Amino acid sequence: MATIVLCSVNKTAQTTTRRCLFAHFKGLARAGESAHSPSLTSLPRTRWSRGTSIRFMSHGTTGRTAGTRRGALALTGAAALTAAAAVAGVLANANHLQRAEMASKVSPAVEREQEGDILERCRGFMSAPVTEVALLQERKGEMSTRMEMLIMETQADFCKALQEVDGGTFKVDRWQRKEGGGGISCVMQDGKVFEKAGVNVSVVFGHLTEEAAKQMRSRGKVLKGKDGKLPFCAMGVSSVIHPKNPHIPTVHFNYRYFEIEEEDGSKQWWFGGGTDLTPIYVNEEDAFHFHNTLKEACDKHHSQYYPDFKKWCDRYFYIRHRGETRGIGGIFFDDLDSPSQEDAFSFVKSCARTVVPCYLPIVYKHLNDPCTEEEKDWQQVRRGRYVEFNLVYDRGVKFGLATPGSRIESILMSLPLTARWEYMHEPAKGTREAKMLEVLQNPKEWV
Amino acid sequence: MATIVLCSVNKTAQTTTRRCLFAHFKGLARAGESAHSPSLTSLPRTRWSRGTSIRFMSHGTTGRTAGTRRGALALTGAAALTAAAAVAGVLANANHLQRAEMASKVSPAVEREQEGDILERCRGFMSAPVTEVALLQERKGEMSTRMEMLIMETQADFCKALQEVDGGTFKVDRWQRKEGGGGISCVMQDGKVFEKAGVNVSVVFGHLTEEAAKQMRSRGKVLKGKDGKLPFCAMGVSSVIHPKNPHIPTVHFNYRYFEIEEEDGSKQWWFGGGTDLTPIYVNEEDAFHFHNTLKEACDKHHSQYYPDFKKWCDRYFYIRHRGETRGIGGIFFDDLDSPSQEDAFSFVKSCARTVVPCYLPIVYKHLNDPCTEEEKDWQQVRRGRYVEFNLVYDRGVKFGLATPGSRIESILMSLPLTARWEYMHEPAKGTREAKMLEVLQNPKEWV
Repeated sequence: MATIVLCSVNKTAQTTTRRCLFAHFKGLARAGESAHSPSLTSLPRTRWSRGTSIRFMSHGTTGRTAGTRRGALALTGAAALTAAAAVAGVLANANHLQRAEMASKVSPAVEREQEGDILERCRGFMSAPVTEVALLQERKGEMSTRMEMLIMETQADFCKALQEVDGGTFKVDRWQRKEGGGGISCVMQDGKVFEKAGVNVSVVFGHLTEEAAKQMRSRGKVLKGKDGKLPFCAMGVSSVIHPKNPHIPTVHFNYRYFEIEEEDGSKQWWFGGGTDLTPIYVNEEDAFHFHNTLKEACDKHHSQYYPDFKKWCDRYFYIRHRGETRGIGGIFFDDLDSPSQEDAFSFVKSCARTVVPCYLPIVYKHLNDPCTEEEKDWQQVRRGRYVEFNLVYDRGVKFGLATPGSRIESILMSLPLTARWEYMHEPAKGTREAKMLEVLQNPKEWV
Repeated sequence: MATIVLCSVNKTAQTTTRRCLFAHFKGLARAGESAHSPSLTSLPRTRWSRGTSIRFMSHGTTGRTAGTRRGALALTGAAALTAAAAVAGVLANANHLQRAEMASKVSPAVEREQEGDILERCRGFMSAPVTEVALLQERKGEMSTRMEMLIMETQADFCKALQEVDGGTFKVDRWQRKEGGGGISCVMQDGKVFEKAGVNVSVVFGHLTEEAAKQMRSRGKVLKGKDGKLPFCAMGVSSVIHPKNPHIPTVHFNYRYFEIEEEDGSKQWWFGGGTDLTPIYVNEEDAFHFHNTLKEACDKHHSQYYPDFKKWCDRYFYIRHRGETRGIGGIFFDDLDSPSQEDAFSFVKSCARTVVPCYLPIVYKHLNDPCTEEEKDWQQVRRGRYVEFNLVYDRGVKFGLATPGSRIESILMSLPLTARWEYMHEPAKGTREAKMLEVLQNPKEWV
């Protein structure tokens, strides 16, 4: 019952957030830009009544044996976020002054929803942001600032959730890019639960050639630069988590934002991203939870987002030479520049915030699943396929490896700690390994 | 002393072989082709007196401890080949009839040097050749037949030498390519000495588009096909051996031949290949032996071959994003179509026949070297780099993965059984791991 109440309030909370974001943006952006933004009116309100957290709560608490207890704890954390959002919902009709007065009474999550004080929000990060705090404060309303804050928050939320379940600590590396910008790489290696967990933020800027700019965009749109050069800014958060237990799937997500300035001063911008799961064995319940959590996040923004981006994900994470997908998918999108910058950002924010609720309940559920040597072997073979996809097909990895000045260790932290290639490995018919392969060869609808 | 004698006789033996090959070729090929072939007269005779086997023999017998005994045995095997070639040298001036009479008295190696009876030679192979024996007999003098016999022999010689040292047996898979041709893959996995050993032969034919034909040739020469299609034949032997002991290096070799028929019926042909070593730790003596054996094989054909192909090898096996070579190199060449088909084949034959003497003495030498957990870890990290090169840069792998109908398992059998990616792995200064990296970052001259 409690969750249903939270969900219905949650709806209002998020609507409020969008209004606040919009107000900030409106105050700082050019009038023309904000006038074009149909962010609020185009919101698919009717879908909000579906109760986004019900599934997550009930699913999570079905965790069994030793995993149940910790699973319940994790859900408490996630539920706390929902509750905080609910409090924010009360503020739906409050003006800026009222909100400022109430800021100290609500949780940090609410402040973030409101995109409140930059310095305060930075305190929760794994490291100071790439861009100087003073500069972020000065450009508080700009999309690049808002996105940088979102990716830093996503990194912190995910790292903390993983640390809590593993008991280990992320190694945090700040790095600078000679040509402009830098990043923060958080890596936990050989932990109790995770073989290798990497969560990376990068914020880079500089100038691109027209050819490179064309390549950056999957639709390959031709952009006109001043003397062939285009100032650009690219940022994103990306993560790959390889757990030790073969019953806990590998997860990957990446959310990114690009801005390119053309010769006439106009800005091209777009978002991209996705979250996808790579289990070693099929678990229908996990697959449903994962996809359904994503679907609910997507449905808040557009009813076509989940079906379209689910298909895109299956197409993208395809190991062509093997005739199989990397995992059971999730969502994937690129070049998102509609219906407005505000709407696109709001969608990306929803996606980024589903990372923890998509994945952590699955981790807790299987935390103490026993496993055999054969299962570990199959996991190592699947890890090998993961490496094949990442090195042969992944656009991000290929672009990174080919770009001078890239931080190779941050690009390749997506590779598992260990992998295996057995000649002619073929699971016997009827085994759970064969069932996994069958699913990878014929992507399924999970929701 | 004995070796010196063998070497000086060996020179004559090879000259003989070339004469025999030429006679065969002349008999069956069009008169115009053989007339253009300066194979014999252009032989750099002066270089033959350098004594090719001395280094190999003296080096091999310096093997220590438990390895010495087996090392000596291996050398006996290699020396036997040399000796057999020496006997063939006696036949330098013998005519065809005389040789036929003596065939039963000499070793199989001699028969092969003489490119004798096809059926007889096939008996020593790991499997029947890809092309039907009757067809090979019918086209005995054609380069495609002679090359197919050479690659089958190279596969058999190498596999047998590896089986002898490991005690295990190669799994032999014959496979067919729907579009034409097929191959024979020999794999030994998780043996006593070798973690994964793969020796693959493929003989494929069919039609290429002009674009594909251009891509097949590293110089990217434009070839004109009938209605845009070009009949082609491509064949080669390739191998990657990953031993268990980190003190035994990984070796790779590949020798290949291409034929493409243009619109006007003229044939374009070229050879490619190379042998290179990837040690986990620097061992100057091994490096010298390996490179010197290659150099001696090259020097018999052209004094520029070794220096040029050594540099080409360092350039080719370069992991750009790491700023390091894959190993300590060897030789690599492509597009070899001069000075004549006969000469090019003779060079390739010399290279293919140095594979065993290049590598096996090193294997025997380190067979019983003790190793630590740290050394095994470093080996796994280096294996990871091997995977990076093969999946990101290797032209053969990329071409294979992108070609429909390729046998993926044969292409990817070059990947190690196990590999490891540690985030920010950096050997401490002054360690043997750091010394290895230094060599990979600054390719050395070993001879």
